[in-house]
Amino acid sequence: MNIAVLEMEFERRREQIVQDWEAFLRFPSVSADPARQQDCLDCADWVAARLRRHGFHAELAPTGTKPFVFAERAGKPDRPTVLFYGHYDVQPVDPLGSWTTPPFEPAWRGGRLFARGAQDNKGQVFYTLAAIEALIEGGALDVNLKVLIEGEEECSSGGLNRVLESWRERLQADILMVHDTCMVQSGAPTIIMGLRGIVHLSAQLNGTDHDLHSGVHGGLAPNAAQGVAQLAALLFDAEGRVAVPGFYDGVIPPSPRESQLAAAVPFDADAYRRQTGTSPDGGMRELPPYERVGFLPSLDINGIHSGYGGSGMKTIIPAAAELKLTARLVPGQAPQAVLDAISAHLSRHTPAGMRLTLADTGIGGPGFRLDPDAAAVRTAQGALATLCPGQPVAFLWEGASIPIVSRLAEVSGAKPLLVGFGLEADRIHAPDESFSLAQFKSGFLYTALFLQSVT
Amino acid sequence: MNIAVLEMEFERRREQIVQDWEAFLRFPSVSADPARQQDCLDCADWVAARLRRHGFHAELAPTGTKPFVFAERAGKPDRPTVLFYGHYDVQPVDPLGSWTTPPFEPAWRGGRLFARGAQDNKGQVFYTLAAIEALIEGGALDVNLKVLIEGEEECSSGGLNRVLESWRERLQADILMVHDTCMVQSGAPTIIMGLRGIVHLSAQLNGTDHDLHSGVHGGLAPNAAQGVAQLAALLFDAEGRVAVPGFYDGVIPPSPRESQLAAAVPFDADAYRRQTGTSPDGGMRELPPYERVGFLPSLDINGIHSGYGGSGMKTIIPAAAELKLTARLVPGQAPQAVLDAISAHLSRHTPAGMRLTLADTGIGGPGFRLDPDAAAVRTAQGALATLCPGQPVAFLWEGASIPIVSRLAEVSGAKPLLVGFGLEADRIHAPDESFSLAQFKSGFLYTALFLQSVT
Repeated sequence: MNIAVLEMEFERRREQIVQDWEAFLRFPSVSADPARQQDCLDCADWVAARLRRHGFHAELAPTGTKPFVFAERAGKPDRPTVLFYGHYDVQPVDPLGSWTTPPFEPAWRGGRLFARGAQDNKGQVFYTLAAIEALIEGGALDVNLKVLIEGEEECSSGGLNRVLESWRERLQADILMVHDTCMVQSGAPTIIMGLRGIVHLSAQLNGTDHDLHSGVHGGLAPNAAQGVAQLAALLFDAEGRVAVPGFYDGVIPPSPRESQLAAAVPFDADAYRRQTGTSPDGGMRELPPYERVGFLPSLDINGIHSGYGGSGMKTIIPAAAELKLTARLVPGQAPQAVLDAISAHLSRHTPAGMRLTLADTGIGGPGFRLDPDAAAVRTAQGALATLCPGQPVAFLWEGASIPIVSRLAEVSGAKPLLVGFGLEADRIHAPDESFSLAQFKSGFLYTALFLQSVT
Repeated sequence: MNIAVLEMEFERRREQIVQDWEAFLRFPSVSADPARQQDCLDCADWVAARLRRHGFHAELAPTGTKPFVFAERAGKPDRPTVLFYGHYDVQPVDPLGSWTTPPFEPAWRGGRLFARGAQDNKGQVFYTLAAIEALIEGGALDVNLKVLIEGEEECSSGGLNRVLESWRERLQADILMVHDTCMVQSGAPTIIMGLRGIVHLSAQLNGTDHDLHSGVHGGLAPNAAQGVAQLAALLFDAEGRVAVPGFYDGVIPPSPRESQLAAAVPFDADAYRRQTGTSPDGGMRELPPYERVGFLPSLDINGIHSGYGGSGMKTIIPAAAELKLTARLVPGQAPQAVLDAISAHLSRHTPAGMRLTLADTGIGGPGFRLDPDAAAVRTAQGALATLCPGQPVAFLWEGASIPIVSRLAEVSGAKPLLVGFGLEADRIHAPDESFSLAQFKSGFLYTALFLQSVT
C-alpha cells in the first residue's frame, strides 16, 4: 500500500478510528493512583481484545502490579521481527481545575483531541495499532510482529522490569519500535538516534548531632549546610565540566557524520529562552547545544537541602544535609563505574568532622546511539521522506533517558528505533494534554510505510 | 550587708522566696502563643505589683504587643544608676509529652525546681528581685535602680524594640545589669565580657522559569541547585576563613590581656564532642576555640534549599534555590558594611544565566566587648570572688548575640554587664527545664554584693 492508498484508507476509516481512539482515552488508567487499578485492567483488556480481533495471539501478562499486554502475530519467515513497545497507562491529572474539559472525556477543539493520554502514549499507541490493523485488513503486513503495551511506564515500569528477564526468549526481535517521542521544534519528521543512560544517588552529610546555636558555635562547629555546598560545588569546575575524576572515561565522541547530522537540526536560542526563561548556559558553554545534550554525559543536582527553609530566619548551624544527584550517560560509559567515581569523589571530599552516607544509588541503564547508516534507520528515513516530501528528516540525539527502552533492547536483542509525532504544544503530563488529528494521521501513515518496507 | 549576713538573710526568707518564685513560674507566659496573651499580662502585673510593694514606681509600658514592666527607685545622688534588664516571657513547652511534670506546675526533684522558665529567665530575674528586696528591707540599697522586665524576649523583643527610642531619656543609666547567661562548663563564676553582633540575609537564586527535565536539559540548562552550592561554597576558603572581601575589615584583635584571660578558661574537647557529636572543626581550625568564638566574626549558612527533597529521586533541574545566612560580628565591624560586603560578593559571583534576589536583610546589632579593667567588671569580679572564695572568676567572651542588650546599651548609654548562674544541666528551651536552689542562691548573693559595692 503506497502513500496515496494509505491516505485514502485513513480517510475511509477515520470516523471509526477516532471513535475508538476516544474510547481508549476514556479509561482513566492512571497507574500512580491505586484507586484506578480496575480501570487499568479494563484498559489492558480492551487493548488485548482489539489485537485478538485482528489475528494476534494476545494475553495479559501479570507482573505483580499492573499487567502488560503481550501479543504476537507471525509474518513471513524471511521478514524481520518487529517488537512494538508502548504503554496504556497515563500520568495523573492534577491540577484537575486547570483542565478546560474533563481529562477523561475526550473533546475536540481546533483540530486537536483533548484528554489525558491523547498523545502520551495512547495517541501514539493507537495510530500504531490502527496502521497495523489497516495493513492486516489490506493483506499488506508480513513482518513478524510482537506488541508489548505496558501499564506502568509513568511509574518507572516497575512491574515490567521485575518480570522482563523471564520474557527474554519470547521478546527476541530485530527492531524495537517505540512511538513515544516528539518531533524537533521545527516540526520536521524526526528519528531519535540515541538516548542517554541514567544513574542516580543521594548523599546524606552529617555534621553535629543536632542543629546548634549559630552564635554559641559559629566559627567552631562544622556546618553541614556549608559542607554540602562545598561538596556539591566540587563536582564541577569553573568551565561547567564535571570535575569528578573518571566521569568522562570511555565517552565515545560523535563521528563526523553524527556531528554533521546533529548540527543540521538548528538550535533556536530564542525558543529556548521562551520555553525555559533562560539561556542554555548550564554546562560547557563553549560547545554547541546538540553536543552537550546528545553526545556528552551530564551531572545534575536534583535537590540540595539543609537547615531552615521557612519564612524569616533561624539562627542555627544545621546538623545534616542531603544532596540528590542524577547523571546522564552516553555510550562508552559504564553506569556502575560512573556511580563508583561519583561516590569516591564525594567520599574523598567529605569535609573534616562530617560523615557521608550514600543512598538511593541506582542504575537506570546505559546510553545508546544508532548507526545513521543502519538499515532500519534508512528505512525509517525513507518512510518519513515519503510522508513529508521535500522536508529533510531530522536526526535527533536525545538527552533524556528511557530506561525501559534500554533494558528492552538488551533483553530482546533488538535495535531501538524511536520515531514519534509529538510536539511541545501537546502539553503531555500537564493539564489540557492534546494531540492533533494531523499528527495522529502522520503517525498512522509512517507506521504503515515503515512496517511494509523494513528489512 | 556582708556575705555572712546575706546568707543568713537568704535562709531566713527562703521559704517565702521559693513560694513566690513558684508563683511566678505558674504563669504560662509563653510569648509566642497568642492564646497566652492574658497570662502574659497577668504575669507582668504580678511583677509590677511586687516592685511597687518595695517602694518602686512601677508601670506596665505598652508596646502594641506585650507590655514591659518598668520600675524606678531613686537612691543616693552620688551613687551610680543601674538598669536591670530581664524578661518575664518564656519559651513554648513543646514537646509537652517529654516533660516529667507539667511545665507550669513547678516541682522539686533533687534540689532542682522543674518548670518552664525555672532558669530562663524567671529564675534569674527572681533571685535578682529577691536580692533587691532584701537590700531594701535591710536599708542597704542606695544605688539608683531602674528595672525593665519585658515580655517578648523569646520573640526577638519586637515590642520593646519598637518603642525603645522613645524611652531613651528614662532609660539613661551607668550600668546595664543582665542576668540571663550561664557559667562556664567548670561551674566557675563567670562574667560575660562580650557578645557578638549579628546581621542576617537570605538570597534567592532563580535559573529557569520552572523545574526542567534533567535528561532533556542536562548539560544545557543552568541548574539553580548547582548555582547555589557554588555561590555558597565561594563564601569560604579552604582554610575555613570567610572569603568575602572586606568581611574582616576593622576587626579589633584581642589585647594580650584579653587573650590571656580568655585562654584561662579551658576548652574541653571531650565535653564538646559529647555535647555536639563532633569536633570543633568548623572554622579556622589553627586558632584556639576561644578566639574563634569570642574574638572573630563568623558566617554560617542557616539553610540551603533547592529542588527535590522527598524520598527517592526526581529527575529535575531545579529552577530556584534559597540560601539563608547569618554573620556574627565583633567590635570594629560595622554591621551595614558587613551586610553590604556579603551582598556584593553574592552578586558578583551569581552564576551566568541566573538572577539573585536578596531578602530578609537585617541588623541585630554590633558586637561589644568590655574592658577587663573597667570599674564595673572589677566590682563584679570582687563580688564573685567573695561568693566563691578560692575559685578564679572566668572571663568569657561569648559567641552569641543578644541584640536587645546591644540596643539597650546604646539607648541607655550604660555599659552592659552580663553575669548569670545558668548551667548546661538547666536545659533551657527544652523539656524539663530546671534551676537548682544552689544556683538561685548564688545569684541572690552575687546580686546583693554587687549592688552594694558598684561605683
